[in-house]
Amino acid sequence: MIEQIKPMDIEKRSFAIITELLGDRNLDPENELVIKRVIHTSADFDYADNLVFSPHAVQKGIEALRGGCDIVTDTQMAKAGINKTILGKLGGEVHCFMSDPDVAAEAKERGITRAIVSMERAAKLKKPCIFAIGNAPTALISLHEQMEKGLLHPALIIGVPVGFVNVVESKELIIDSSVPHIVARGRKGGSNVAAAVCNALLYQIMR
Amino acid sequence: MIEQIKPMDIEKRSFAIITELLGDRNLDPENELVIKRVIHTSADFDYADNLVFSPHAVQKGIEALRGGCDIVTDTQMAKAGINKTILGKLGGEVHCFMSDPDVAAEAKERGITRAIVSMERAAKLKKPCIFAIGNAPTALISLHEQMEKGLLHPALIIGVPVGFVNVVESKELIIDSSVPHIVARGRKGGSNVAAAVCNALLYQIMR
Repeated sequence: MIEQIKPMDIEKRSFAIITELLGDRNLDPENELVIKRVIHTSADFDYADNLVFSPHAVQKGIEALRGGCDIVTDTQMAKAGINKTILGKLGGEVHCFMSDPDVAAEAKERGITRAIVSMERAAKLKKPCIFAIGNAPTALISLHEQMEKGLLHPALIIGVPVGFVNVVESKELIIDSSVPHIVARGRKGGSNVAAAVCNALLYQIMR
Repeated sequence: MIEQIKPMDIEKRSFAIITELLGDRNLDPENELVIKRVIHTSADFDYADNLVFSPHAVQKGIEALRGGCDIVTDTQMAKAGINKTILGKLGGEVHCFMSDPDVAAEAKERGITRAIVSMERAAKLKKPCIFAIGNAPTALISLHEQMEKGLLHPALIIGVPVGFVNVVESKELIIDSSVPHIVARGRKGGSNVAAAVCNALLYQIMR
């Protein structure tokens, strides 16, 4: 039966149901709102187990956003899903270079993915950035390489690509590194998850 | 270990892995590419069980797209994810009314969701439409009401909202109706799933 509920109450009720379904699971209070928002966006409780947070990753992400950092993502879908109103009020913007015609041309010429070229472009941005990767493991691998070379110092990497080829491995590279990170271990993730993590951080600053 | 693979081969390899992991499951050949693309976008094999297809829904969707139909969706994320190049070549476009300022104003005034107002607008489009609903159960409920009144005759409903309040129930309304549909039974779904189903239909026409 359809429940009568006011539009503004739907999200609150959803979170209450998620909390109920999580039962007596002990979530780290610092990470709880991120985990619950990812479950809210996927209805997939696997994320209660597979989200890996480096120490104080949430707090570091929130601090970077408060400081006006930008967000770089690897899909137009994640860009569409991130709350750009709040990000803009904080002084940040979202970049996605994936659809730029010159990125496609360069990727084709070099025989590499557009995601790698996009991350190389992103590394040249002059501002502190959070990287929210929801699709391309090659983006994570490229970020890792650039960090190893000392060319890049992300404020936070949200590493949640989804899929079957190099996805698991690329995430482990980030988990094993010293960069602040929030990673969905395993195959699961996606643009929706990347956007949900960003929004969970943004909503802790303002709504 | 990171596998060396050409960008153009990644998707092919992913689908081969998905096929392998599905094992000896018998998927209906007509629905197979939709199911596999949804798994490809989510890494969630639950979709092998929970996608419900009305008779020849895939074929009907493909025919509508070939005929130049439009797609209406309830999120900017799904709009971002749908392959608009192919859709455009076929003569169609994607509509999402959710962010229109007058939709927000009308929803607030009437105390209903923006999704309902968006679907009422969509019902006034003069072209045949596929509805791809990845977020709002109220969109599905509104479509159902308008169909019951004879005001709306969708070419296909892709009913894949995600969540915890009225989501399951809204999908059952569509499954029980006579409209051609592809529905993710249960709580799971999302904008990524909605876009993946659209693209699975489009890619069967051209790539």
